[in-house]
Amino acid sequence: MSIILFLDFAGVFVFAATGALAASRRQLDIIGFIFLANITGFGGGTVRDVILGDTPVIWVKDPTYLLIGTAAAILVYLIAHKIESRYRALLWLDAIGMAMFATMGAAKGLSLGFGPSIAIVMGIFTATLGGIMRDMVAGEPSVLMRREIYISAALAGAAAYVALWSLTENPLYSAVPATLIAFLVRGGALLFGWKLPNYHAKRGRTTKELERDGIVPHDD
Amino acid sequence: MSIILFLDFAGVFVFAATGALAASRRQLDIIGFIFLANITGFGGGTVRDVILGDTPVIWVKDPTYLLIGTAAAILVYLIAHKIESRYRALLWLDAIGMAMFATMGAAKGLSLGFGPSIAIVMGIFTATLGGIMRDMVAGEPSVLMRREIYISAALAGAAAYVALWSLTENPLYSAVPATLIAFLVRGGALLFGWKLPNYHAKRGRTTKELERDGIVPHDD
Amino acid sequence: MSIILFLDFAGVFVFAATGALAASRRQLDIIGFIFLANITGFGGGTVRDVILGDTPVIWVKDPTYLLIGTAAAILVYLIAHKIESRYRALLWLDAIGMAMFATMGAAKGLSLGFGPSIAIVMGIFTATLGGIMRDMVAGEPSVLMRREIYISAALAGAAAYVALWSLTENPLYSAVPATLIAFLVRGGALLFGWKLPNYHAKRGRTTKELERDGIVPHDD
Repeated sequence: MSIILFLDFAGVFVFAATGALAASRRQLDIIGFIFLANITGFGGGTVRDVILGDTPVIWVKDPTYLLIGTAAAILVYLIAHKIESRYRALLWLDAIGMAMFATMGAAKGLSLGFGPSIAIVMGIFTATLGGIMRDMVAGEPSVLMRREIYISAALAGAAAYVALWSLTENPLYSAVPATLIAFLVRGGALLFGWKLPNYHAKRGRTTKELERDGIVPHDD
Repeated sequence: MSIILFLDFAGVFVFAATGALAASRRQLDIIGFIFLANITGFGGGTVRDVILGDTPVIWVKDPTYLLIGTAAAILVYLIAHKIESRYRALLWLDAIGMAMFATMGAAKGLSLGFGPSIAIVMGIFTATLGGIMRDMVAGEPSVLMRREIYISAALAGAAAYVALWSLTENPLYSAVPATLIAFLVRGGALLFGWKLPNYHAKRGRTTKELERDGIVPHDD
Repeated sequence: MSIILFLDFAGVFVFAATGALAASRRQLDIIGFIFLANITGFGGGTVRDVILGDTPVIWVKDPTYLLIGTAAAILVYLIAHKIESRYRALLWLDAIGMAMFATMGAAKGLSLGFGPSIAIVMGIFTATLGGIMRDMVAGEPSVLMRREIYISAALAGAAAYVALWSLTENPLYSAVPATLIAFLVRGGALLFGWKLPNYHAKRGRTTKELERDGIVPHDD
């Protein structure tokens, strides 16, 4: 199995596990676990394939993906109650899956013949959109809207893969460092609250405050 | 008209009506009713067709779908104020539409030559994604995240269709029982609060509690 | 450059700026600005192209779109703190982008050979879905769910383009009035709170009230 295929399957497994952890936080049943796990596991890859016109999407052509997502869901269903903090587990697995998919998405973009900028964007999309879907469907506040570094870590991993590939043309020597870079950047953000400077931005007014200040009309 | 095409049109009509009921709860105008009704009516089918690579999607090729969705929206616009509980009506129509689309989506998957597992997944997607989109766009808490049985009912209907079709190869004898099974399972959940056992899961901490316990950094 | 291509690029720029303003309200970093700006800038066009089967989608084929979205994000990042009300700026730029995309989406539908009703629907989708995605990802209450006229303005612009095109077959004479019509209708709604009559609709009960009244079971 190539390193890229390994990253794809492993990324599906850990992202699916984060979907199952979100299902556990919502107290869904086993079918709900499997549903949310699979949406999270290949939601990002599905959007990537659809945007690139590579349909039917990969998990329709190869049922291995459904098996992996479902296995992750069942595993989490059986052990979630033994995990002290499911949300902390979710954040760390999300970081691992994000790093794998940033590399894998960039590699897929290049392998379909697209240029470096599109390959990097595909890395970012594959890495982030599954998590966005998980948070939207589960009604969680989106991980991406937190102020610690997230998208930048996916960008770093995808860009590293594209740069290393152009230097080495060796998937292994490109994929392993790129995945590590993305994971270390996001892991540092989780451990130490790393942020990029945010240049003067202040919190936006809430809808209530916007109505009070006459920015939007009272909506009732 | 074949039973499958009937289920498709009827499913669009009742799902569109649930979108219009959500629009009524948000006090939208008639154009808002039509917009949300059509998104709900064929949102799930659109995702199914896009994933399978069957584009342009069906409602672009056949404007009948837009007519049906718009008719449902206008009807609900005219009578919504006479309905005692719009949300109860929404839940029951959603159950009917879900049952029809679980069958119809599975039938479409088989008819395009995909295997049983992909056909069942397509049944589940067609049955659930329109409602997910309705709830997201309207800002309602998602029906799928409730603890009564929902996705399991779609799974039961789609699996029943695939099984009955392989036995009978008769669309009518497969579609009618499958649709009834999905509707009865979901209806029982609505009436009696049927749940699958949820094995130890406890509610997830809120963002505030996660910050208090140091799982995520304070986000301001 | 044709008027339609100009509207496309200009629409991407102003919609991307609204995404960046939402990023500023959430205090994201520069990479977050760029991510949300690009999703808002061509999210609607991406869905349109995917639904019509015109893939790879336009911004994959032509990286100019990514450059425009990124430029808008950087500009807003540098000046957002000088804007007195970012949300008011967001609403007005959203109105300009919506008007441009209603025209541009209808023009694209016609140019691909679809009929008037599909062209109008594509105008509405292109005009509204980028904003819906921005609000969903950023966790803002959706602009479309407000009670002032919004979707109707997109409909008016798209329908005007289709009508004027069938009369004149001149892109300039069709696109300029159509864009103005959409903008003036939405601008009037923003300034004067224009609403269509909403025929008896009353606010929907909240989830808590639905539980209290026994419409849905207590979900805990």
